[in-house]
Amino acid sequence: MSEKQIPDIVIGRLPTYLRALQHMAQEGRQVTSSQELGERLGISAAQIRKDLSQFGEFGKQGTGYNIEFLAKQLQEILHVDRGWDVAIVGAGDIGSGLARYQGFNERGFSIKMVFDNSAAKIGAKIGEFTIMDAKDLVSEVSKAGMQVAMIAVPAAFAQAVTDQLIEAGVKAILNYAPVNLTVPAGVRIQHIDPATHLQRMTYYLS
Amino acid sequence: MSEKQIPDIVIGRLPTYLRALQHMAQEGRQVTSSQELGERLGISAAQIRKDLSQFGEFGKQGTGYNIEFLAKQLQEILHVDRGWDVAIVGAGDIGSGLARYQGFNERGFSIKMVFDNSAAKIGAKIGEFTIMDAKDLVSEVSKAGMQVAMIAVPAAFAQAVTDQLIEAGVKAILNYAPVNLTVPAGVRIQHIDPATHLQRMTYYLS
Repeated sequence: MSEKQIPDIVIGRLPTYLRALQHMAQEGRQVTSSQELGERLGISAAQIRKDLSQFGEFGKQGTGYNIEFLAKQLQEILHVDRGWDVAIVGAGDIGSGLARYQGFNERGFSIKMVFDNSAAKIGAKIGEFTIMDAKDLVSEVSKAGMQVAMIAVPAAFAQAVTDQLIEAGVKAILNYAPVNLTVPAGVRIQHIDPATHLQRMTYYLS
Repeated sequence: MSEKQIPDIVIGRLPTYLRALQHMAQEGRQVTSSQELGERLGISAAQIRKDLSQFGEFGKQGTGYNIEFLAKQLQEILHVDRGWDVAIVGAGDIGSGLARYQGFNERGFSIKMVFDNSAAKIGAKIGEFTIMDAKDLVSEVSKAGMQVAMIAVPAAFAQAVTDQLIEAGVKAILNYAPVNLTVPAGVRIQHIDPATHLQRMTYYLS
């Protein structure tokens, strides 16, 4: 796969294409089209063809896309044809929900550790995980060589946790704390904040 | 405020500007600059000035932005200078976490109802909320005139719930189910799916 510079906004659409293709495969489907994908996703067929064409030729004019093949190609492009070990920091409602969520494995992620700094939580169980002491975060994540983490701690602690994760070698962070976090070049961060998402929609309401 | 067509990608950045300004205000700060905002957010100062200029003149060359004033203007633009009542559908880990989350009120949202279809959950309490029967969803949401909802049900039920919310008059939906949902014109939807966010980052890892 060529590694030419592709706009991040295109990369951002690929996981939704992959998810839709995997749903189609689960439905027992074998072939789809950019039209059908577009209707499922609320994206134009032309946009989907243009996005995919950046990575190669995946379908034939008139015959559409083989679902299994295209999904496999997208998994390779997104590097989720392997399993990424993931650390969760924060064992409150969100962190616990993420630790229990069953949908990660089939999409390339395997939760391995859950940390918290509360004495009441350290040593307790969430599903199969024993909550680990946040003071061992750097050493444990570093030792395990993990590159992916999710932060679900209060906003006031999120930057300090981010700095520790980066020190431990983490390169991709999904942040659930409602605060923007600063990361150095070479580290990726995405933010999930429901109020931010809601405000983006209320702009259009009256 | 003029209602000319502004690109949605610009609208999508405004809530993060507002959030950063509100953090600065909490820190007791009174004035900021596009440079400082940009550093906090990882966005160029020029981009911030350009985005804000679409809505008016909020700062003076050389003196920067009054934080309280700009935050107030952004709240008006995003229509969160009022409180939006919100329904949550699904009282599992995510729905319960959202119902308990204390950060919505100060950002323009007030959770009013939590629904589930499980007999074991209906009538139980999450914090101050008594879980309501999902079969009353359309009538209760409609009666309350709610326009905003969050979906935290399994993927297989999410489209049916979406259709019911739209029937009830909801115009903005934040979807936590890991599936794309179809909504008619005039209804806004945003998707939160951690695996999708993670895959967008693993593209850049090796």
